[in-house]
Amino acid sequence: MNILTRPILEINYDNLLSNYISLTKAANEAIPAAVIKDDAYGLGAKSVASVLYTRANCRHFFVAHAVEGEKIVENAQEAKIYVLQGIGNDNLDVFQKHHQLIPVISSPEMFAFWKANKLPDIKPVIQIETGLNRLGFREKDLQKLSDDDLKEFSIVMSHLACADEKEHFMNQRQLEQFTQLKKKFFPNIPASLSASDGVFLGADFHFEMVRLGAALYGINSTPYRQNQMRNVVTIKAPILQITTLPKGEFVGYSATYRASSERKIAIISIGYGDGLPRSLSNVGKVFFKNKEKIEECRIIGRVSMDNIICDITNISHAQVGDLAYIAADFYTIDDVARDAGTIAYELISRIGKNSRFLRN
Amino acid sequence: MNILTRPILEINYDNLLSNYISLTKAANEAIPAAVIKDDAYGLGAKSVASVLYTRANCRHFFVAHAVEGEKIVENAQEAKIYVLQGIGNDNLDVFQKHHQLIPVISSPEMFAFWKANKLPDIKPVIQIETGLNRLGFREKDLQKLSDDDLKEFSIVMSHLACADEKEHFMNQRQLEQFTQLKKKFFPNIPASLSASDGVFLGADFHFEMVRLGAALYGINSTPYRQNQMRNVVTIKAPILQITTLPKGEFVGYSATYRASSERKIAIISIGYGDGLPRSLSNVGKVFFKNKEKIEECRIIGRVSMDNIICDITNISHAQVGDLAYIAADFYTIDDVARDAGTIAYELISRIGKNSRFLRN
Repeated sequence: MNILTRPILEINYDNLLSNYISLTKAANEAIPAAVIKDDAYGLGAKSVASVLYTRANCRHFFVAHAVEGEKIVENAQEAKIYVLQGIGNDNLDVFQKHHQLIPVISSPEMFAFWKANKLPDIKPVIQIETGLNRLGFREKDLQKLSDDDLKEFSIVMSHLACADEKEHFMNQRQLEQFTQLKKKFFPNIPASLSASDGVFLGADFHFEMVRLGAALYGINSTPYRQNQMRNVVTIKAPILQITTLPKGEFVGYSATYRASSERKIAIISIGYGDGLPRSLSNVGKVFFKNKEKIEECRIIGRVSMDNIICDITNISHAQVGDLAYIAADFYTIDDVARDAGTIAYELISRIGKNSRFLRN
Repeated sequence: MNILTRPILEINYDNLLSNYISLTKAANEAIPAAVIKDDAYGLGAKSVASVLYTRANCRHFFVAHAVEGEKIVENAQEAKIYVLQGIGNDNLDVFQKHHQLIPVISSPEMFAFWKANKLPDIKPVIQIETGLNRLGFREKDLQKLSDDDLKEFSIVMSHLACADEKEHFMNQRQLEQFTQLKKKFFPNIPASLSASDGVFLGADFHFEMVRLGAALYGINSTPYRQNQMRNVVTIKAPILQITTLPKGEFVGYSATYRASSERKIAIISIGYGDGLPRSLSNVGKVFFKNKEKIEECRIIGRVSMDNIICDITNISHAQVGDLAYIAADFYTIDDVARDAGTIAYELISRIGKNSRFLRN
């Protein structure tokens, strides 16, 4: 008998590449940049960057923080790495050490910092606000910039709020605002408005560069239609124990599940410490493969830090050491996230952040 | 102006020590073991283990996985490190390398594996099931063990399901079941039933060893009364930008917030990528310190991966670079978790798992 204790995270790099190529095609002439912030949405920024850099010639990456960019400079030596949260007193040293890192400047205050601490030969990106009301220069801020200030920047970018809803009125409104501000203040530099979801809003939204994140990792960033991307993430965990739960017995913390009849249960080695949302308590599903068949069972009781308990009464073949599927091509990270009441972005950004996961 | 970009996680090690000492006193004669699984609930197992080992002479630690134990062997060289998820094909090598690691055996199958792969001079812990219906030997499993088998073990343990509710009927029921099985099968070895919450159920629940986890880290494991522990975790993040939100404007993804009047907003550098639950969207609070005064404001719109947006209309003094408090002694991780619809265990096990956090 194969006794296993650790959860497993599998990344399908071929599918990741295929997604990158599909998205690049959909974006026509726009330069594709890969968004690998938050450790490539939890999947591992080093490996993801290496694969895209060496196998798909990707030369533009976005991270949120300079320390994230620092981790991939070795794996993508000729690439430009844009840092969305920008530059400040707490990361200036990282920028000074790695000349591939290019700050995104999103506020007048950060721009003042930049002017006092310029890096040689680096032209930052400027982020402008067009409706998300998150980071970025408003029109009134841009009006205060001198002609020389405006020439400091290499790219002008903004970010869409509702691009995952194709018909949302915000999309057209942000496009118009972006087009107008770009024309007025930055007529001669490349522009970037769209992330993965924006790519599918049409050619007007592409400009010179698109920022490919969620869809790269197989997340459906166009939930108004079937996912066009291939699955990248598979999450599995081994059965540690199988036992009989007598009728009337309770399961898990706070005894939130009670057996209405005798059940067969499996204790599986994954929990919220591994990033599995606790909101899957008494709701989430896991799956077993029986030759070609996929068999479904339910999480019962609370998700605990290291374990879940599943009702496997109908899974006759299950044995200790078998692997339960949490997410796979037949039940994707989008499906698991929906069950947990969140989005796959949050789900995968948590999964795999501990050292317990075996990774391919 | 101080421009900052990174969130900050502060661990108060003095308060951690104070909690350890309080819990140790409450547990009377029982040996205190520190539970530092899942990277010490996300706070950093190496530092936590070092502090408890060197400053409080803690010599017993529990982790979930052997790879977690491996990370602290250097920092706690004379300690015993018990591995709750046990031993199997995927971590046998780790046990063979580090003789401080002691597996907890929770199933007949794992015990068979143990007998085939015994480690010299190691006597494992046995976990028995008393009502949580998670990992552990049931009575029928114990009956199948030979006298020699029973002598294999150094400690017998179980785990309570409802110890955070003092009057819950399960507590007494599990205590009776544990006492009976211990007497019958393991009369001569030390026993351990209680985690932090169990310590406060009274001396009957202490046995020879208690396993101190949540309460060490300042979590209120006795929510039926005010927290007796000191606060250990402070989470802060800097304001990246302050701007005016005109009446009628929307905020964040999917435009879930709309301003009913002109507001002043702050964009703050922390998001679900940093472990802040996305369920705090339009619900969570952040705080600013103004001399001695604590001023509260609300997260508006969705929590995104790297940022939150807060309504700071009433915080006149706020400036770019100021630090917003997410959790602190005046609004603890228990409070934040409640706002997010979860428990502080899940909250802190996510926070700080990325590389962006500055740590003390």
